[in-house]
Amino acid sequence: MTSTPTDDIWEAMSTARTIRRFRDEPVGPDVLARCIQAATWAPSGGNQQPWHFVVMTSPEAREALAIGAARALETIERVYRLQRPEPDDDTPRARNSRAMFALHDGAASVPAAVLFCVRDQPSTPSLTLGASIFPAMQNFLLAARALGLGTCVTGWHVGSEPEFRDALAIPEAWRLAGLAIVGWPQGHHGSLRRRPVHEVASLDRWDTPLREGDQPAEA
Amino acid sequence: MTSTPTDDIWEAMSTARTIRRFRDEPVGPDVLARCIQAATWAPSGGNQQPWHFVVMTSPEAREALAIGAARALETIERVYRLQRPEPDDDTPRARNSRAMFALHDGAASVPAAVLFCVRDQPSTPSLTLGASIFPAMQNFLLAARALGLGTCVTGWHVGSEPEFRDALAIPEAWRLAGLAIVGWPQGHHGSLRRRPVHEVASLDRWDTPLREGDQPAEA
Repeated sequence: MTSTPTDDIWEAMSTARTIRRFRDEPVGPDVLARCIQAATWAPSGGNQQPWHFVVMTSPEAREALAIGAARALETIERVYRLQRPEPDDDTPRARNSRAMFALHDGAASVPAAVLFCVRDQPSTPSLTLGASIFPAMQNFLLAARALGLGTCVTGWHVGSEPEFRDALAIPEAWRLAGLAIVGWPQGHHGSLRRRPVHEVASLDRWDTPLREGDQPAEA
Repeated sequence: MTSTPTDDIWEAMSTARTIRRFRDEPVGPDVLARCIQAATWAPSGGNQQPWHFVVMTSPEAREALAIGAARALETIERVYRLQRPEPDDDTPRARNSRAMFALHDGAASVPAAVLFCVRDQPSTPSLTLGASIFPAMQNFLLAARALGLGTCVTGWHVGSEPEFRDALAIPEAWRLAGLAIVGWPQGHHGSLRRRPVHEVASLDRWDTPLREGDQPAEA
C-alpha cells in the first residue's frame, strides 16, 4: 500500500506514482488548498510567482474536461496504437490500459482537477517559462501524495485550449501549462519504473556516465 | 537554521529557499547521484523519462558557467536596473544583491552545477515539454534541501547555449532546460516570501478566489 499518507520526503517522492482509479469520495477544498500552498513554495524566475491555480468542479469546467479528454484519447489511440482491452484480459498491460480508457471516459466525473497556469513573458522562451510553473506542480503532486491522495498529470488542455479558457474565464495573458487529476486512490499500486542514474546522468561529458564514487575535478 | 537536514516533506518544501552563498566544501558525486535519483522519480509525459542530467565540474564546464553567468548578469543589470551595492550598505536588499553579484562573479568556482536536459519532441509544444523535466528538477532541489544542501536555479545556459553544448558535448536532439547551482550553505537563511493561496488560486472561475471551506459543486 504505497498510498498511505506519509511525511517522509523520500517515501513520498519515491512512491508518487500516477494514479488513474479513484474512490467515489470528494476531495475537499481545504485539502486542495493545502496542496496549492505547497505549490507556492516552489521557486520561480526572479521569485515572480507567475502562477495561478484553478480548481475545476463546476458543470462548465467538467464539460471542458470531458471535451479535452475525448480529444486527448483520440491522439493517444492513434500515436500509441492503443485499443480497448478485451474484457477477460487480466494482464498488467490490459489492466493499465483499461484504467487509462476509464479515466478518459469518466473525465467529467473525476473527483477533482487542478489547472496550472503561468503568466506569459514575451521575452522568455516557452521552455524556460516552464521553470516557473512545473516545479509548483511537482510540489502540488508531492503534497497530495504525502496526504494519501493520488494524482495523474494529463495534457487534456493542450488540444482544447479555447474550451478551457472559456469555461474558466482565463485571461489572455496567461498560458495553460499543466492539468492534474486528483482523488483518493482506489486499491493499492506498485512501485515506480525508472531508468537507473548511470543511464541518465553524465559527469562533464554527455558520453561519460556519472557513477557514485566518481571524483569530480577540483574547483 | 533552515538548512538543517530534514526528512520531513513539509519542512523541506517550505524551507527550500534559493541559496546563493556556499561554504568552500566540495559536493560529492554520491550526494549528487542521490539527488539525481530523486529527480528520476518525477513523472514525465507517457513515462518516457526524456531527461538527462549533466554534472558540471571540468575546467571546460566551468568556463561555460562563467560565460553564461557573465551574460546573464548583463541582462539582470539591465532588466532589473541593478547596481553593485556600496560596501557599507548592510540593508537586507543590499546583502541580497551582493550575494547575487558574488554568485555570478564566482560562477567558475561554484561547488557544483547540474544541467537539466530534455529530449526534444517535435510534436510537443515547448511549454508542455517542460512538464517532462522541471518536475524532475524540483525533486532534485527538494532532495538537496532534505540533505542540507542549498540550491539556486539560474538561467545561465539560456543565452549561452553554444558554449554549454560545446563544453558538455550535448547532442543536437536535446534541449537545455534548467541549471541548478548546488553547495553546502553558508550561514543560515530566512523563510520563503510567497503570496497567499487565495490570491493565486480560483474555484472554477478565474475571478473567484479559492478559500478553504468552499464547497465544490457535486460531481
